[in-house]
Amino acid sequence: MAAPAKTQFIAEPKTVSIVGCPFSGGQLGVDKGPIHLVDAGLAQQLTDLGWNVLFDGHHQFEEISTETDPPIGKMKNPRLVSNVTEAVAKVVGDHARKGQLPLTLGGDHSLAMGTIAGTLSQHPNACVIWVDAHADLNTPETTDSGNIHGMPLSFLLSLASSADLKYTSASEPTPFAWLDNVHLPPSRLAYIGLRDVDPGEKALLRKHDIAAFSMHEVDRYGIGQVVEMALDRVNPARDRPVHLSFDVDALDPTVAPSTGTPVRGGLTFREGHYICERLFETGLIAAFDLMEVNPSLRDPASVKQTVAVGCSLVRAALGETLL
Amino acid sequence: MAAPAKTQFIAEPKTVSIVGCPFSGGQLGVDKGPIHLVDAGLAQQLTDLGWNVLFDGHHQFEEISTETDPPIGKMKNPRLVSNVTEAVAKVVGDHARKGQLPLTLGGDHSLAMGTIAGTLSQHPNACVIWVDAHADLNTPETTDSGNIHGMPLSFLLSLASSADLKYTSASEPTPFAWLDNVHLPPSRLAYIGLRDVDPGEKALLRKHDIAAFSMHEVDRYGIGQVVEMALDRVNPARDRPVHLSFDVDALDPTVAPSTGTPVRGGLTFREGHYICERLFETGLIAAFDLMEVNPSLRDPASVKQTVAVGCSLVRAALGETLL
Amino acid sequence: MAAPAKTQFIAEPKTVSIVGCPFSGGQLGVDKGPIHLVDAGLAQQLTDLGWNVLFDGHHQFEEISTETDPPIGKMKNPRLVSNVTEAVAKVVGDHARKGQLPLTLGGDHSLAMGTIAGTLSQHPNACVIWVDAHADLNTPETTDSGNIHGMPLSFLLSLASSADLKYTSASEPTPFAWLDNVHLPPSRLAYIGLRDVDPGEKALLRKHDIAAFSMHEVDRYGIGQVVEMALDRVNPARDRPVHLSFDVDALDPTVAPSTGTPVRGGLTFREGHYICERLFETGLIAAFDLMEVNPSLRDPASVKQTVAVGCSLVRAALGETLL
Ligand SMILES: [Mn+2]
Ligand SMILES: [Mn+2]
Ligand SMILES: [Mn+2]
Ligand SMILES: [Mn+2]
Ligand SMILES: [Mn+2]
Ligand SMILES: [Mn+2]
Repeated sequence: MAAPAKTQFIAEPKTVSIVGCPFSGGQLGVDKGPIHLVDAGLAQQLTDLGWNVLFDGHHQFEEISTETDPPIGKMKNPRLVSNVTEAVAKVVGDHARKGQLPLTLGGDHSLAMGTIAGTLSQHPNACVIWVDAHADLNTPETTDSGNIHGMPLSFLLSLASSADLKYTSASEPTPFAWLDNVHLPPSRLAYIGLRDVDPGEKALLRKHDIAAFSMHEVDRYGIGQVVEMALDRVNPARDRPVHLSFDVDALDPTVAPSTGTPVRGGLTFREGHYICERLFETGLIAAFDLMEVNPSLRDPASVKQTVAVGCSLVRAALGETLL
Repeated sequence: MAAPAKTQFIAEPKTVSIVGCPFSGGQLGVDKGPIHLVDAGLAQQLTDLGWNVLFDGHHQFEEISTETDPPIGKMKNPRLVSNVTEAVAKVVGDHARKGQLPLTLGGDHSLAMGTIAGTLSQHPNACVIWVDAHADLNTPETTDSGNIHGMPLSFLLSLASSADLKYTSASEPTPFAWLDNVHLPPSRLAYIGLRDVDPGEKALLRKHDIAAFSMHEVDRYGIGQVVEMALDRVNPARDRPVHLSFDVDALDPTVAPSTGTPVRGGLTFREGHYICERLFETGLIAAFDLMEVNPSLRDPASVKQTVAVGCSLVRAALGETLL
Repeated sequence: MAAPAKTQFIAEPKTVSIVGCPFSGGQLGVDKGPIHLVDAGLAQQLTDLGWNVLFDGHHQFEEISTETDPPIGKMKNPRLVSNVTEAVAKVVGDHARKGQLPLTLGGDHSLAMGTIAGTLSQHPNACVIWVDAHADLNTPETTDSGNIHGMPLSFLLSLASSADLKYTSASEPTPFAWLDNVHLPPSRLAYIGLRDVDPGEKALLRKHDIAAFSMHEVDRYGIGQVVEMALDRVNPARDRPVHLSFDVDALDPTVAPSTGTPVRGGLTFREGHYICERLFETGLIAAFDLMEVNPSLRDPASVKQTVAVGCSLVRAALGETLL
């Protein structure tokens, strides 16, 4: 119940703007995640923590039927995902410009194209801590599945661009052209929790010397040291705004079962919370994403558990402390 | 099966006195805890570890009906809890004076008013390691529930006293007046495992600069370092007697489900045992409490598991080693 | 999917020889372990990792009926176990001489008499990392059960020998006489994961100053440090071949339930994998045993889980990395 402490990049009185994104670029049911999180009382919980909470309903994304959104190469739903993430970027950027903390609830992780672009529009020197079992770093070339939620970082790091889509249309803009001028330097991205990374992604991680702390490093050094090591890489002077993008599948499936691509051997309940608590404690948090809660997967008790853990992670990232 | 090693404050041949306290200040069923622990063979297990074991039956506490024990302010059952803990203090103190190790089995954690008072009567310089999800530090003013098992440390630290009860009776003594001369300096209390602490308790922890290691610190430093850090605070020269008061709800509910106020994100089976093993290893253990095993909660398998873990913690604190 | 990196004691192109040992010296069902592991696709998984995989079927061990194999002292099935392990030693040694990595799938842990003898025949300076809840160090005198899978290390360390069997027969050789010239110095054995060690074994560990890291040390230092501490003891210059003998019961029973002698408080999924990953990373792995998977114990889901974890440990020890 601690009132928010020093948060360098959020104006007083501290305000959090909930960006509810009931959106799926393909995976059935993940669009219901934000609705469950809000229905579980998240806004009130943040009010109780001392935040001024803004939430005026979940975003309505324009429907683009699959008939009018055929794949480009392997990429599925490219026009829809491009339009939605562009809209999210604008909303998140507007909140940041007002000194508010944008809290984006997904939905699938392609949304981070929008949230991080929004953060960078206000904080060009921000760094990103990406907590995930997966690297989400495929390009339109390396992807097997064609799911864009496995690709957001390749676009944000400028390893992929709209030019790669080999798209020619006189009547409509190339999808993701809006992202071509957004650039997160690879030196300002750090992963925590990785354990299911494609060969092409591994090659990109090495080539661009990206700070990647897998579960192997969590075992080796402990989560306490890993968070500091990640910050040392992307935020050595502890002066950059931090965008924390948290995919619940970073947690072990026994902790957060209701998610689309669970992988064994994940973060414990406490390790996940520790990351959030510690990053809030730095006073550098500028934006938070909670992604990939999928209430249509597993049994009702698992759904309830996953939603509760999701709310609890948000509270930890917004200043709830054990002491 | 290691025979007890160097234990500075216990006389040879080493004797443990089991103080069975089937007592509840309110919570239904927790009074059955010590009976289950003893029935599971705890005395024989300690004999097998090389201890001389004294146990002459569970204590019978005088019945005080609720009619004659109305609340004082919010405090429930104040006369009963005061009488019982005063009796326990005498028993524990007597065992300590004989050079025995008092092993108190609860019952609810209000009993620690008695056990710690007893320890201090023989070892005025003792320190306390309090392993718990909760701080048990409310005062008669800050308590919401009125349960005294949430308050024992406020009285022991002299943050509360019988004078606070605003009690006026010509015919009977003020409850807890017997505790007014007992004082544990806040600098000699260290918590491990906290994760559910009331706002008023947090304020007291800060005001009195009490050593409090929550699950956040266990994640950050690992349990090995946390135990040393706790000892560095309350026992820097490693020369004070240690009273270890262990609430089983410090353990994760998956490890010890049968307890009255379980909280997620607790100590693992091994972390709980490590604390006990390490404190025994220091040779400084002078008294041990095992509290809050409640055999009336959860299913029979959970009860059996919780009782087995309880016995195992006691063995670890009394010298059972893995090697 | 990393191709195998530097492996000093394996020739290029890297070849793994699967030694399937469907053998039990007594425990019902453990002989089915290797069949389940291979049927789960282990060979293909290692091919996918970039290994040349040799496997020409499970070994057929000559049947010796219990009528012709009465106990010697307390030792059960001594002739059978001696014959089988002698045959395994020859096979493992032959693979090692060809520069291949022998991967032995058990079956019970008595098989390690054979695998380690085989490794030492080619690499006399090899060290052994023994990952197990148990020390498997009983002698024919100290054993309670008479099961030889609780004794392999006493013979390998020359703490027991065929002479101890007080066996007199003109017509057949003394069982384990073939092992009398095999000697692993106690200074080249390190245990990880111990938590159920007999008093006689504890005495031997101390007497011979054997590096033994129990779960207490894993809690105290973390698995990352423990692996380095173990290597510092048995392989200080990081130049000796490493024989890794992994009993799945080292893992917590919630992780690997289908095994004959499960013990609470074991290694987590990640800790077990970390050991394998880190030892492969040293480039010193010369042989790997995976033992005590017993598909006849627990329910089908537990069997499937244990077999999957077993395959996953093998992949980790043969170079699968998270990044
Ligand atoms: Mn993701
Ligand atoms: Mn993911
Ligand atoms: Mn408690
Ligand atoms: Mn308590
Ligand atoms: Mn074993
Ligand atoms: Mn074994």
